[in-house]
Amino acid sequence: MYELGVVYRNIERTDRATADALATLGSATVHEAMGRVGLLKPYMRPIYAGVQVSGTAVTVLLHPGDNWMMHVVAEQIQPGDIVVAATTAECTDGYFGDLLATSFQARGARALVIDAGVRDVKTLTEMGFPVWSRCISSKGTIKATLGSVNIPVVCAGMWVTPGDVIVADDDGVVCVPHALADKTLDAARKREALEGEKRAKLASGVLGLDMYRMREPLAAAGLKYID
Amino acid sequence: MYELGVVYRNIERTDRATADALATLGSATVHEAMGRVGLLKPYMRPIYAGVQVSGTAVTVLLHPGDNWMMHVVAEQIQPGDIVVAATTAECTDGYFGDLLATSFQARGARALVIDAGVRDVKTLTEMGFPVWSRCISSKGTIKATLGSVNIPVVCAGMWVTPGDVIVADDDGVVCVPHALADKTLDAARKREALEGEKRAKLASGVLGLDMYRMREPLAAAGLKYID
Amino acid sequence: MYELGVVYRNIERTDRATADALATLGSATVHEAMGRVGLLKPYMRPIYAGVQVSGTAVTVLLHPGDNWMMHVVAEQIQPGDIVVAATTAECTDGYFGDLLATSFQARGARALVIDAGVRDVKTLTEMGFPVWSRCISSKGTIKATLGSVNIPVVCAGMWVTPGDVIVADDDGVVCVPHALADKTLDAARKREALEGEKRAKLASGVLGLDMYRMREPLAAAGLKYID
Amino acid sequence: MYELGVVYRNIERTDRATADALATLGSATVHEAMGRVGLLKPYMRPIYAGVQVSGTAVTVLLHPGDNWMMHVVAEQIQPGDIVVAATTAECTDGYFGDLLATSFQARGARALVIDAGVRDVKTLTEMGFPVWSRCISSKGTIKATLGSVNIPVVCAGMWVTPGDVIVADDDGVVCVPHALADKTLDAARKREALEGEKRAKLASGVLGLDMYRMREPLAAAGLKYID
Amino acid sequence: MYELGVVYRNIERTDRATADALATLGSATVHEAMGRVGLLKPYMRPIYAGVQVSGTAVTVLLHPGDNWMMHVVAEQIQPGDIVVAATTAECTDGYFGDLLATSFQARGARALVIDAGVRDVKTLTEMGFPVWSRCISSKGTIKATLGSVNIPVVCAGMWVTPGDVIVADDDGVVCVPHALADKTLDAARKREALEGEKRAKLASGVLGLDMYRMREPLAAAGLKYID
Amino acid sequence: MYELGVVYRNIERTDRATADALATLGSATVHEAMGRVGLLKPYMRPIYAGVQVSGTAVTVLLHPGDNWMMHVVAEQIQPGDIVVAATTAECTDGYFGDLLATSFQARGARALVIDAGVRDVKTLTEMGFPVWSRCISSKGTIKATLGSVNIPVVCAGMWVTPGDVIVADDDGVVCVPHALADKTLDAARKREALEGEKRAKLASGVLGLDMYRMREPLAAAGLKYID
Repeated sequence: MYELGVVYRNIERTDRATADALATLGSATVHEAMGRVGLLKPYMRPIYAGVQVSGTAVTVLLHPGDNWMMHVVAEQIQPGDIVVAATTAECTDGYFGDLLATSFQARGARALVIDAGVRDVKTLTEMGFPVWSRCISSKGTIKATLGSVNIPVVCAGMWVTPGDVIVADDDGVVCVPHALADKTLDAARKREALEGEKRAKLASGVLGLDMYRMREPLAAAGLKYID
Repeated sequence: MYELGVVYRNIERTDRATADALATLGSATVHEAMGRVGLLKPYMRPIYAGVQVSGTAVTVLLHPGDNWMMHVVAEQIQPGDIVVAATTAECTDGYFGDLLATSFQARGARALVIDAGVRDVKTLTEMGFPVWSRCISSKGTIKATLGSVNIPVVCAGMWVTPGDVIVADDDGVVCVPHALADKTLDAARKREALEGEKRAKLASGVLGLDMYRMREPLAAAGLKYID
Repeated sequence: MYELGVVYRNIERTDRATADALATLGSATVHEAMGRVGLLKPYMRPIYAGVQVSGTAVTVLLHPGDNWMMHVVAEQIQPGDIVVAATTAECTDGYFGDLLATSFQARGARALVIDAGVRDVKTLTEMGFPVWSRCISSKGTIKATLGSVNIPVVCAGMWVTPGDVIVADDDGVVCVPHALADKTLDAARKREALEGEKRAKLASGVLGLDMYRMREPLAAAGLKYID
Repeated sequence: MYELGVVYRNIERTDRATADALATLGSATVHEAMGRVGLLKPYMRPIYAGVQVSGTAVTVLLHPGDNWMMHVVAEQIQPGDIVVAATTAECTDGYFGDLLATSFQARGARALVIDAGVRDVKTLTEMGFPVWSRCISSKGTIKATLGSVNIPVVCAGMWVTPGDVIVADDDGVVCVPHALADKTLDAARKREALEGEKRAKLASGVLGLDMYRMREPLAAAGLKYID
Repeated sequence: MYELGVVYRNIERTDRATADALATLGSATVHEAMGRVGLLKPYMRPIYAGVQVSGTAVTVLLHPGDNWMMHVVAEQIQPGDIVVAATTAECTDGYFGDLLATSFQARGARALVIDAGVRDVKTLTEMGFPVWSRCISSKGTIKATLGSVNIPVVCAGMWVTPGDVIVADDDGVVCVPHALADKTLDAARKREALEGEKRAKLASGVLGLDMYRMREPLAAAGLKYID
Repeated sequence: MYELGVVYRNIERTDRATADALATLGSATVHEAMGRVGLLKPYMRPIYAGVQVSGTAVTVLLHPGDNWMMHVVAEQIQPGDIVVAATTAECTDGYFGDLLATSFQARGARALVIDAGVRDVKTLTEMGFPVWSRCISSKGTIKATLGSVNIPVVCAGMWVTPGDVIVADDDGVVCVPHALADKTLDAARKREALEGEKRAKLASGVLGLDMYRMREPLAAAGLKYID
């Protein structure tokens, strides 16, 4: 449930070095390191491919068809932040375009994650301002009703608290809670470290069946080979 | 983000009288009383019509295709509770049928709210055990992976904390946070009290335009009548 | 494209006798009589089963999450009308509940057809006020932005002009343009008249293959029977 | 891949007694008895509630918007059959109404399962002819292109071979292959036989945790209780 | 409601200079200039990115799975036109491929906007013939049933009259009615003219809160800052 | 209906030359050559554009959220194969990433067609390993339940038997049954051969109306031109 009409100015951001380090690990490795949780729903897609980014969440709660609070959240952005925008009911309108992106970029935002629509995607792509969104739509919005900034929100099915780390890439978006960020970074790095060796083995023709020692458990589960 | 593999046995339930009193007000009035927030997404539908119920939330987090934790949550049910079930990824399987309903009912549960599928809906209807769900499906589930019980969950887009009040009827499902329950009850009752008089006026042919004094603001906004 | 902020008070309604006579023929027969066109999309469903109704359209264009114009359209209703509500962007909010239904009913409206959500469906069912809608949702709306009343609108994919005839039943909703209403009524009645005889033949075991003389054209098209 | 323009007149139907006996077990129990497979997708819903039916499949492949083959399949129906209709591309048109239902019923069909739309649902309900379909739509169809009758088809994601047993109820639709019908009936009956006793235990307050001896495996998996 | 089986040869196209000038303003600015109306639904997406185009609408109404009228509309194309294709029921088939694109291009068409599927998208991309569509599908169509050419149609939820201006880009598709084209062009240009200055200010770090003087209305609406 | 827990090691693959030759013809031409059947549903999209590939199907049946069998199918891959993965219930999890792709590529697989999600799409694109999937998702899977390898499966609505030919490109995916491969190749080549000439005519301004001699049948069907 949401507190409306408030802006929290002081949020506890995850340590910058930790937040930044998670970018290169990617959303798949990071969510695995947390126990396969933390992902936003897969309908959240990047407006252009190839970006891998992480940052600290500043959040904004919007009403359907109303982007007034996007201007309020802009002031709360600090360099290294990613804005996470949720709505109180489903909406596909284009809440965000090149002007707001210019402002967000000037404030140091690295990306926007929005459970609604965006527009001016050609310009956003040229500016290099990445967005993960539910859809793309030219539909404009009004500025009439208060939402909130920096309260915990549900964005695309995931609970995001201001200051959490957001990791986003072509595979999707994951939220790492502030309290778990260091532990997750360690676990993700360990996971990553093992991947190079595995990849080399698999490339040489070794089967996962053998590398992961799956033949016995598969047989125990009753798998039958038929010639 | 979710803590996995834990069961919280002691949750702070909203006062019984308050939780019970919210049932008759209905999901629409209650969410209006909170400022038009708190609703689960409208894809959550009752398996049969005509029930209006409220109760205190006990929560369970499930993995796709796995209903093991439904048996774990059963033990945590107290009379007057409503079980709120979320999943870590979208799934339409039938997690719940007549046997689990028998057990839930024996423990005193009033209803199930589940962001997934249910089955045995004919028997559930005959038993009088109401369910609000994403869908109906015969598909069975396995019992292999741990989730959690009585942690805060996102169910159908809404954040639900154990002990919150759930109000559900033919119009949908709303979650009233524990801390706001008394205040919401008061506000909802006031709203309700005004409705009888309004209904009588409207039934007599008085227009909302006049009853709500809308003609002036409409004219001020520029509305034009053309003959 | 829509003209905003206007209310047309004088619309040319289809003749009452014609509009009323179309009800018993039903949406399927009526749209066939027009050449299989005129239907709203099949996601438009009745909130309760068993109603078959027709009436003259008064239209209203709404903004997402804003039901202000529903009060404006109420004044334009005449006995025998059906209100047809469209929105400028997709929205599932509950624009209409028991108070507005009381007002509409007092004005003589027979039904509402709305490309959005409704609420208080239990009370609407008890009142006997039928609604065809995209969905059911408790979500309330605001009153802030002007739409229009009695302009042509696109509702659930179909163009509806004020004064057209709306026919709605368990199978869906069809719009019969004013200019085609008499001709459609004749054609639909002829179609209907033939159905009783056909039904009796089919019930007696005569096959459609023989009754419709399909065996030759099927053979000509190359159909092969294999024993 | 589909063979077009053919009607197989002789299909090997599952033994009548076996096919009939599966009805009372229901779609959930039957698909569990097969190893949790065989279900059509859960978007297939009954047009009215409360029916539990089984029968032998006769199949028909239709083109989008074209119900010509529905008349061809009618002739191949034998008492105790259920018609299973698939389409070569997704379509929501109303392929089937009260006239075809009259014909199917006269031929002894027990139900229709169609991965498309139906119409005249009020009359079908009054006639007591059950249909499971993707949707309800008034939209009529043409009779122009050949499909096939009694070839294997994919209906709502499941492979159905003529003569297989279809079991359908409020929970969904399951297909039991001819060759597995006897074995499935035995397994489903055993499953069912155990349910009465389980239900009584659960109703008396025994927990599934104890009845199914889950406490140990849950602890072994690491479940933690927190007071 | 649609007139079937007709081709209107003489349509009143919007003035070429006006129609052409709208391209550079883009769908978002143009629909804002009309009062935030006129957009087709956001499921209409370009088959390749980066095109911004405008032109005069020639329309075609198609039946599901039947592209016969695409050949009829080809003859009615004049240089500078955009073909707008609607269907009488939802269909995802691929109505249009490289051969029709070759013909349309030879006639001077600038683009196709179709509320259905297209195919040969790789070749269309190489040819530089842009399409906005509901989906991409290899599925072919037949040529059996008459639709119409150059009647008003509903395409992706928007009413399009032959001769209207279509503006399409990566953000979506907007329809500007012939009668409003000049006025819309003026309004859009004014809107555009102001954007450069705003962008510079925002890029320099000025906040929208200050540039748009929002602080007072936000405070008046009750916004609270919490440290 | 599916046989669970089995791996068929010896499947009858379509002749390599035939399977390879179908690639250049593309999914649209190939499905037309079969009579407009054989296509997987159009929600199956490539993770990157521009690939046109064919190969022999090896199949795998997976449970929701469980990719254990992907390692089992890897061993059954032979150079020139395309892996076709189906699931027993709808699931959007990311079953396949860069490690499995490395293994599949090492075994000679040309592509993956999966009715579920994939991840690591940036790396897959760099590796040049094409995938057609229902969606993209970071969500990982477990390895707990047996499915099967090289049994016939329903993938995205189409029946695929091991050894059939899969043709996939930007327009979609088509399955050519082993028994029809040679005949289909011939028919597709003939179709293709005629296209060059047609394209030249259309490019020169000849209308399809004349090239396909449609004017007479259109007039016979009643098409009217109105000036």
